[in-house]
Amino acid sequence: MELRPIGIIRTPFEDVSGTPIQPAFANDAEGTVEVFPEFAEGLADLAGYERIWLVYWFDRAGCTRLRVIPFRDTRERGLFATRAPCRPNPIGLSCVRLVSLAESVLRVAGVDVLDKTPLLDIKPYVPEFDAYPVSRTG
Amino acid sequence: MELRPIGIIRTPFEDVSGTPIQPAFANDAEGTVEVFPEFAEGLADLAGYERIWLVYWFDRAGCTRLRVIPFRDTRERGLFATRAPCRPNPIGLSCVRLVSLAESVLRVAGVDVLDKTPLLDIKPYVPEFDAYPVSRTG
Repeated sequence: MELRPIGIIRTPFEDVSGTPIQPAFANDAEGTVEVFPEFAEGLADLAGYERIWLVYWFDRAGCTRLRVIPFRDTRERGLFATRAPCRPNPIGLSCVRLVSLAESVLRVAGVDVLDKTPLLDIKPYVPEFDAYPVSRTG
Repeated sequence: MELRPIGIIRTPFEDVSGTPIQPAFANDAEGTVEVFPEFAEGLADLAGYERIWLVYWFDRAGCTRLRVIPFRDTRERGLFATRAPCRPNPIGLSCVRLVSLAESVLRVAGVDVLDKTPLLDIKPYVPEFDAYPVSRTG
């Protein structure tokens, strides 16, 4: 199971300390997603979506830890009950707003990832699949 | 960027033809997620969540295609505007309901993946990060 980057995410965030922890807290920070030209054909029809999932590689996550103290928490939690980057497979997932798409460059808003993060996949955000009301959230 | 399975997803679906295309259409099909014992510690606190993301490897996806005709569609679309498995990095993403968690085995409902799918990650479903109202969806 080997991955290859399909593009690069560019953001204003060069180090972890200033990076929003989730798009919901990113205050509409803008970034660009440069999809490598050989994958550009796969972007057809994407502009019809208001939001998209960015799937990316936490390339500066460091080694795996199975217990972490999440941001905004004071107690150690099981890793899989958090969104911390130090995962066995450091795959990140962020729902961002698609502002525009020209050639193979996407402008996105509400981005919470580090500059130069390797992009692995883009999926459309479809509320029917992705948005659920829940009452228990940890 | 190499991945390692952290567990196996067991479902009633042995081939693509009978598999629901998304959890939303899975009619509460139940499955189990067997997390390998060495990662069990990371499951602490997860039971507090009603829904979780399963991140998995589409191990039977076949080769990448940048244009596909999605289920429930008649026209070819750009791959990244679909959730089709034949992606450059065949990473799947499903939001399922967590029914129970005992030791390192999770019972989940609304599962839409093939039996014996390799599990890559589990993340909590947090509406604040994951649930967005959108008006344009393709």
